[in-house]
Amino acid sequence: MDYIFSKRISGLAPSAIREILKFTSDPEVISFAAGNPAPEAFPIKEAQQLSKKIFELYPIDALQYGVTEGFAPLRNKLLEDMKQKHNIGKDFDGIIITSGAQQVMDLTTKILCNEGDIIICEEPSFIGSLNCFKSYGAKLCGVKIDSDGINLEILEQKLKEHKNARFIYTIPNFQNPSGVTMSLEKRKGLYELARKYDKIILEDNPYGDLRVSGDPVPSIKSMDEDGRVIYAGSFSKLFSPGLRVGYAIASNELLSKMTVGKQTSDVHTPVFSQMLVYEWLQSFDVDEHIAGMRNIYKKKIDLMCNEIDTHLSDFFTYIRPQGGLFLWAKLPQNVDMTEFCKTAVANKVAVVPGSAFMASEDAPTQYIRLNFSTPSDDDIVKGIQILAQVAKEYK
Amino acid sequence: MDYIFSKRISGLAPSAIREILKFTSDPEVISFAAGNPAPEAFPIKEAQQLSKKIFELYPIDALQYGVTEGFAPLRNKLLEDMKQKHNIGKDFDGIIITSGAQQVMDLTTKILCNEGDIIICEEPSFIGSLNCFKSYGAKLCGVKIDSDGINLEILEQKLKEHKNARFIYTIPNFQNPSGVTMSLEKRKGLYELARKYDKIILEDNPYGDLRVSGDPVPSIKSMDEDGRVIYAGSFSKLFSPGLRVGYAIASNELLSKMTVGKQTSDVHTPVFSQMLVYEWLQSFDVDEHIAGMRNIYKKKIDLMCNEIDTHLSDFFTYIRPQGGLFLWAKLPQNVDMTEFCKTAVANKVAVVPGSAFMASEDAPTQYIRLNFSTPSDDDIVKGIQILAQVAKEYK
Repeated sequence: MDYIFSKRISGLAPSAIREILKFTSDPEVISFAAGNPAPEAFPIKEAQQLSKKIFELYPIDALQYGVTEGFAPLRNKLLEDMKQKHNIGKDFDGIIITSGAQQVMDLTTKILCNEGDIIICEEPSFIGSLNCFKSYGAKLCGVKIDSDGINLEILEQKLKEHKNARFIYTIPNFQNPSGVTMSLEKRKGLYELARKYDKIILEDNPYGDLRVSGDPVPSIKSMDEDGRVIYAGSFSKLFSPGLRVGYAIASNELLSKMTVGKQTSDVHTPVFSQMLVYEWLQSFDVDEHIAGMRNIYKKKIDLMCNEIDTHLSDFFTYIRPQGGLFLWAKLPQNVDMTEFCKTAVANKVAVVPGSAFMASEDAPTQYIRLNFSTPSDDDIVKGIQILAQVAKEYK
Repeated sequence: MDYIFSKRISGLAPSAIREILKFTSDPEVISFAAGNPAPEAFPIKEAQQLSKKIFELYPIDALQYGVTEGFAPLRNKLLEDMKQKHNIGKDFDGIIITSGAQQVMDLTTKILCNEGDIIICEEPSFIGSLNCFKSYGAKLCGVKIDSDGINLEILEQKLKEHKNARFIYTIPNFQNPSGVTMSLEKRKGLYELARKYDKIILEDNPYGDLRVSGDPVPSIKSMDEDGRVIYAGSFSKLFSPGLRVGYAIASNELLSKMTVGKQTSDVHTPVFSQMLVYEWLQSFDVDEHIAGMRNIYKKKIDLMCNEIDTHLSDFFTYIRPQGGLFLWAKLPQNVDMTEFCKTAVANKVAVVPGSAFMASEDAPTQYIRLNFSTPSDDDIVKGIQILAQVAKEYK
């Protein structure tokens, strides 16, 4: 039969990342295109020990239906930890456990946006979130990022223009893809603008723990006095992405709607995944794990940056990220960015064209995104050398 | 701040089930209101053994990101098994692993329905699916169920009336809540009507393995010649609901859109959950497990029906279900159904008012839904006796 698809799904083009990732199933291709955390950072021994414990002590709980809001001990522990460590969570706030932080984007859009509503986002921004927003028929309005975070003048201008903007989406730490960390002044300014124009902020912080240099900056949620910030947290980089455990800390009024929304999406997040994260938080020194993880990521960032500085310093322009998974490199003006990406993958190195991260996919950009967390050290060295070879053809 | 919610979420009233379930956290309340599978049917030893194996042999795979379509070995195994055992899956079909079968409803609606489109469903039907449809702004059109399944005359009339109906939603086996199983003739008739009016069928089969009497009836999907049936399967009743593993078998064209939709919802279903189900299917005799499960459910159905026949035969009218989790009982005409449910819960027995399952929540109904899979044998006996006491007041 001939199918007629909904407008919301017809508007979602297969993403440029997916097109590039197709090539990465070729084992000969070195992939700088993924966004996977470094597997050597996974707490494998702990997962072995704790999964055994869970299935021995609480098998029925792990296998039976759970509640939509999430596994209560995990919710309580997280609320406590986030308050104590990051000053996140006021009296009016609660928590919902989600199926990865991606679902926080999904539920936020579901409860706040009608078709045609505007969502203001950083430009560039995480393609998974942008596609999620589009899947609800929302229109994106991108705001340029400076080296210290979102440009507040342009943001205010857009807020004035778009009365029907429903929320502002931001990744303040080691932004995907730009790698930029928003300064404290800009975080305060962003919150004040949200107040002035009465908008909600969706603060997405999947990489916050992956800081390898510089000082931590307080979250926007920690400044929230009136329940306008939805904070999206994740265990995908800290512990494991395969478990799909994320969470939102937000006002209870927002959470009650998100719970209704989640019930119709997937009923609840797998109980075992939640129990494993809870047991891990309870039983192990998470700060020690984070310290170990930072060492791994620091070496990888340093290696990639040094290789670029040695072989591509006259071709790539970039700001060294203070953490996260990604390096955002600008190509010279005379280089056709898309063609460069195609030539690179033909030479067995996959990178993601920057256009994938634009609010409008046809907005011009000279950038490409490089991931340093997934490839081995050898592959980082070899891959950058190949990119240098490709670059030579443009000189 | 004052929140403005989307139309889609504002239209979802807190469900009657949730209101009733609030009371079931009281340990003194006997709950016939849940829909949980019997915990004694969970393969706990197997889960213990296999989770150990997975975290020992494939820890990185279990913890790293997976692909949106699902864990390839599980997909292949399921396609093979469903073809061989149930003649489900043609050359044009493929499979996607979802976060519970609930997500099949979510993705189907996401890719097919615009706001205001009609979805035709059985009336009564599963509230989780109905709320999911409503969450996309779809309008429900209910079709009465006879003792052998959906009424085809009314269905055809509705198909004529509603040109913008996007699909027909049906639970052919031990329907929730009515317990009715659709006859082979009606399944054929339903498929032919879908062909005649060029509609898609969403066939939801969460309870198919839970047959305790009568002969199995071929699925509608097994008759599908032109890719118009989306088959929703689930491991929630067969293995474990807490793992949240469901799947859709449908034409590859539909699946490619569902994959794009799932990517923006939760990226992928937790890998460990999928691996556990796969290992279980590979390593154990699933048919033997199903046989054991049927024994447990048969005892429970028999016990509840016998108790009703003894104590409530002049008050409840019902059709003995051939399987599933639910018994659908009609109250005498002079009884106020909602008030009966309230009095029951005040007397510490929770049942679900039938109104919860209507396409329009204010459609009149004299029915209530009783679950027999979750309560213990003692609670079934005690609970029915209490309901008989409550019923006396109406005589």
